[in-house]
Amino acid sequence: RSMATAARKSLTIGLIPADGIGKEVIPAARTAIEALGSDIPTPKFVDLIAGFETFTRTGVALPEETVDVLKNDCDCALFGSVSSPSKKVVGYSSPIVALRKILDLYANIRPVVSVSPNPKEPSKVDMIVVRENTECLYVKQEQQTVGEYGKEARATRLITERASTRIGKMAFELALARPRKHLTVIHKSNVLSVTDGLFRESVRAVQLQDPKFEAVTVAEQLVDSAVYRLFREPQIYDVMVAPNLYGDILSDAAAALVGSLGVVPSVNAGDNFVMGEPVHGSAPDIFGQGIANPVASIRSAALMLRHLGYAEAANRIDNAVDSVLREDQLLTPDLGGTAKTQEVTEAIVKRI
Amino acid sequence: RSMATAARKSLTIGLIPADGIGKEVIPAARTAIEALGSDIPTPKFVDLIAGFETFTRTGVALPEETVDVLKNDCDCALFGSVSSPSKKVVGYSSPIVALRKILDLYANIRPVVSVSPNPKEPSKVDMIVVRENTECLYVKQEQQTVGEYGKEARATRLITERASTRIGKMAFELALARPRKHLTVIHKSNVLSVTDGLFRESVRAVQLQDPKFEAVTVAEQLVDSAVYRLFREPQIYDVMVAPNLYGDILSDAAAALVGSLGVVPSVNAGDNFVMGEPVHGSAPDIFGQGIANPVASIRSAALMLRHLGYAEAANRIDNAVDSVLREDQLLTPDLGGTAKTQEVTEAIVKRI
Ligand SMILES: CC(C)[C@H](C(=O)O)[C@@H](O)C(=O)O
Ligand SMILES: CC(C)[C@H](C(=O)O)[C@@H](O)C(=O)O
Repeated sequence: RSMATAARKSLTIGLIPADGIGKEVIPAARTAIEALGSDIPTPKFVDLIAGFETFTRTGVALPEETVDVLKNDCDCALFGSVSSPSKKVVGYSSPIVALRKILDLYANIRPVVSVSPNPKEPSKVDMIVVRENTECLYVKQEQQTVGEYGKEARATRLITERASTRIGKMAFELALARPRKHLTVIHKSNVLSVTDGLFRESVRAVQLQDPKFEAVTVAEQLVDSAVYRLFREPQIYDVMVAPNLYGDILSDAAAALVGSLGVVPSVNAGDNFVMGEPVHGSAPDIFGQGIANPVASIRSAALMLRHLGYAEAANRIDNAVDSVLREDQLLTPDLGGTAKTQEVTEAIVKRI
Repeated sequence: RSMATAARKSLTIGLIPADGIGKEVIPAARTAIEALGSDIPTPKFVDLIAGFETFTRTGVALPEETVDVLKNDCDCALFGSVSSPSKKVVGYSSPIVALRKILDLYANIRPVVSVSPNPKEPSKVDMIVVRENTECLYVKQEQQTVGEYGKEARATRLITERASTRIGKMAFELALARPRKHLTVIHKSNVLSVTDGLFRESVRAVQLQDPKFEAVTVAEQLVDSAVYRLFREPQIYDVMVAPNLYGDILSDAAAALVGSLGVVPSVNAGDNFVMGEPVHGSAPDIFGQGIANPVASIRSAALMLRHLGYAEAANRIDNAVDSVLREDQLLTPDLGGTAKTQEVTEAIVKRI
């Protein structure tokens, strides 16, 4: 499949709400896309299943059919959120981690932006976490053995030049497109000199591959002090690029700075497919009350469309969300308000 | 060596300032210990070398003699901070990581407490991060190979039942001694079901081994959401126990909540030895200006003495520090003041 927008007559979008509030917010994102009218090719939605609930019902967390339909029939997809079992469950494995790998969605792009009450004023926090999405400890190569002193478990952390280079390229491209053109490479090479050493070197080498990347200023941070400085001086960051696990932690940390995980979107992007996904989890504590924040999913839809080349449509969604948060002050409980998922969604749709 | 205090006539303390501001703050900690007088056995200090500077000069980051003296002559030690090379340097390996392993200092105990201006008011942040200190990715088993698409690097993440159990015990003991008696187990078992699964299970199993631990309430958090919640609701945490790398990140994150890394102490504790260490790094940007905050090192000395059984002496140091921060408002630049290392140290010594 090509990511080029020109040839498309219709846009087939896989919807995988999965568990918990995923089932409340993915429908909201769908509604927002439907409101776009002729700005995008006629959207066709395909409902697909995956998740812990699917596992409990069918014994499989990610049914083959879901993967086949995504691969063969869909131009893109939206994924909700998965619940994690509270005890070890034999045979269960996270479907989102699997999907990222199977579809080779190597870049997890997570823009974290605070909405300032005054649209003229620059955002206090405005960064993109670019997370490598296919390797590091997420290769899930784990073994358990029994040694002299009891059980011993080992996991492999894989870092390759190829994956580090392609995520590096993505990060340089994103940095280049922003006013500040600043990139921070995150690693822990003072301990992991070989694996994180390779990540750091591969990312830095990208700058030499294309003269246009000279315009990007590059800094480095050890992951521990990156989290520390993120809280103390978030304004120092523009684009951050990180191996998988550090990116997971950093994007949650950054989300804490903008009021709520409920507003932070992401896309899982590969060369041939893109899948939007809110950064938040399945939030079992609030599921079913109709109070989940739909903003992260709606913005994920915008991000997905932007990635496919529909910048206008994406802007319409993002501007509508900004207005609803800023002017209407229509906020779900995670942002300190009392609005319901549906109210917020309707207000956004009206603004689109 | 026994940790029992009774038999000691003198207390031999190894001092390893290592790099950067370590060389400014370890002498401050020494001065504070000297001010204690007869509350502790007569301290004898032994100056020892290690660090990146030592490596550049001698080719070895952790000289054998340093290890031998620590093992054979010292009751305890204070470690400063190490600089990390900004490029890969063949043969260099972090001396602090090595020391923790060689001396089997399996618990890294990091209390993070905010000093509230009013001594009657409870601290907003008051938690202990208990970090496993010998394994996880810090075993530094890394290899690089060349595959079809370029270089491939692999690191092993080791989690054992034995190490998880002993750090779990330490965490339960610490939780039990606190008013809230609350323990949060940090892991990422939704991805690392085998390694983090073993960590989680081993720690939880500790509670069943001793009826007194029933008084502790136990919660769990995935590391990414733990960092998120740490920033949003730090008051939910009392004692946290985590595998090595998560503990590294969490303790820096927690430090951001109390104003500065410059006030956060730690001890590396084993069954036979204890080594105090400020959580901050070598801070090359401020080294040599005499403005490094000595509080983290001075509190690390207190923590070390407390661990050795000298609670009175430790309290005297901690109370002196509290007074200097609260009443004297004598603050180094990292806390927004203009005081020098020496002024703060002298004020603390006067209060001791
Ligand atoms: C659910 C979990 C496997 C996932 C991850 O760790 O990637 C989540 O935390 C995320 O950030 O998307
Ligand atoms: C210097 C580095 C090896 C060390 C670590 O990662 O343990 C430091 O960050 C710490 O927290 O003590």
